[in-house]
Amino acid sequence: MTSPPRRRAAPRRRPVPDRRPARRADGLGGEQVEGRRAVLEALVAGTRRVRRVLVADAQDSAALLDRIEAAARMRRVPLATVSRARLDKEARTDGHQGVLARCEPVATVDLAAICDPPGGRLAFLVVCDGVQDPRNLGALLRSAECAGATGVVLPAHRSARLTPAVTKTASGAIEHLAFAAVGGIPSALKELERLGVRTVGLAPDAPRSLYDLDVGGGAVALVVGGEERGLARLTRERCAELASIPQHGAVASLNAAVAGAVACFEVARQRAAAGRAT
Amino acid sequence: MTSPPRRRAAPRRRPVPDRRPARRADGLGGEQVEGRRAVLEALVAGTRRVRRVLVADAQDSAALLDRIEAAARMRRVPLATVSRARLDKEARTDGHQGVLARCEPVATVDLAAICDPPGGRLAFLVVCDGVQDPRNLGALLRSAECAGATGVVLPAHRSARLTPAVTKTASGAIEHLAFAAVGGIPSALKELERLGVRTVGLAPDAPRSLYDLDVGGGAVALVVGGEERGLARLTRERCAELASIPQHGAVASLNAAVAGAVACFEVARQRAAAGRAT
Repeated sequence: MTSPPRRRAAPRRRPVPDRRPARRADGLGGEQVEGRRAVLEALVAGTRRVRRVLVADAQDSAALLDRIEAAARMRRVPLATVSRARLDKEARTDGHQGVLARCEPVATVDLAAICDPPGGRLAFLVVCDGVQDPRNLGALLRSAECAGATGVVLPAHRSARLTPAVTKTASGAIEHLAFAAVGGIPSALKELERLGVRTVGLAPDAPRSLYDLDVGGGAVALVVGGEERGLARLTRERCAELASIPQHGAVASLNAAVAGAVACFEVARQRAAAGRAT
Repeated sequence: MTSPPRRRAAPRRRPVPDRRPARRADGLGGEQVEGRRAVLEALVAGTRRVRRVLVADAQDSAALLDRIEAAARMRRVPLATVSRARLDKEARTDGHQGVLARCEPVATVDLAAICDPPGGRLAFLVVCDGVQDPRNLGALLRSAECAGATGVVLPAHRSARLTPAVTKTASGAIEHLAFAAVGGIPSALKELERLGVRTVGLAPDAPRSLYDLDVGGGAVALVVGGEERGLARLTRERCAELASIPQHGAVASLNAAVAGAVACFEVARQRAAAGRAT
């Protein structure tokens, strides 16, 4: 007599080396990381578990590849060398540079936690209100992290997921940012204000210049709109302030990710001028 | 008896509606412009001849398409409606948005002319030293034009040509910038200095911050290095100054095009603060 059918045991959960408390995975994605710099950062940042790394064989040797191998060994992450054709098939971008990693999804924190970054840092948030193009979103995350941003607020609906194209373009930045996934941006802005964060919406038609705003002194959230339509009406209304980056050219407008980058570095510049490390 | 073979007559040159004097075509390309905004700007800027516009049929109506058709009519540019498949075949990017234009190549001016922009404007140049990725180059041109840059210096070798991917990403900016194609960047920098333009190289390792540099008062050229290696050694040596954009993140470095954009907007900010229109 055979034993009754049993459900397969759930895979044993290994403890995750995660320095950030109260994170939970609720659907921003980010499981597949492509590109050398992005995979290396996933391995060395140690903020989430990397399950597996795939490297294409017959690549020219490169310092970054060596560092990826060393980091995978150190973190005891299985690394498989596969054919280029196999990697092309597994990859979901054409910019994988012969490397991809399968990771735990990027975890998220709630708004209260994202307003209180570790290490006593002052919150410096980027709120993405409808940035659709994955390369734009990835580029914005990379620039924001370089400027010292501590966290990112994204709408929880699918369009803003951290796809392989986002992880590739972000070049590792997502490993160093806290993420909050919210049901709606307008209500999140209200909550951020309540938590003491000044919300500044970037709007090309705002009469006030970003450079006339004092953004060097306190917790701040820059709200960046989508490529085509900018900030949604309700988002505009809920921002404590709207500011524009003065344009001096004949071409209509700055790319959304670049506008976000310029604004992030203006926050960084003012913070440094005020003697306040970001 | 047949007549001796004759060479085909050279195509008749039509006068070019060009407001900029002393421009000459010497190989930067730019003949194929893809994407709605880029094609519209080529038609309305009027800085070079547009030979032909191709529009895919069965597209949803869009204000930009209407404006392209009106501009083509006004400038008496033949506009052909073709199948989507045909446009996909003729296009060289996947971001053509159902529209492409065949134009005269982008003309170039010499360094003396690029240092003396029309309308009494103060020269604000971007020198690209090895920016290879077409999307990065296009994005840099777009941001630079938005910040008020007047001209761009590119190496004459093929890697920096204004390919369809560049024209698409630049989103029309190339129609409003003057271009100089030079044999070598280091000697061009020397010549720019002689012509009274301050050359500032962006180098992540430069001890001096861009924000501590006074770039609001005079003619300036920002020198932007390539994605992988940054500025070439000789280029670094020939820049009057090297400056960095202070980084505050854990990720290695800013994308080259974004670094260029942030620097361009710092020039614009300082010029505006000094009461000097760009």
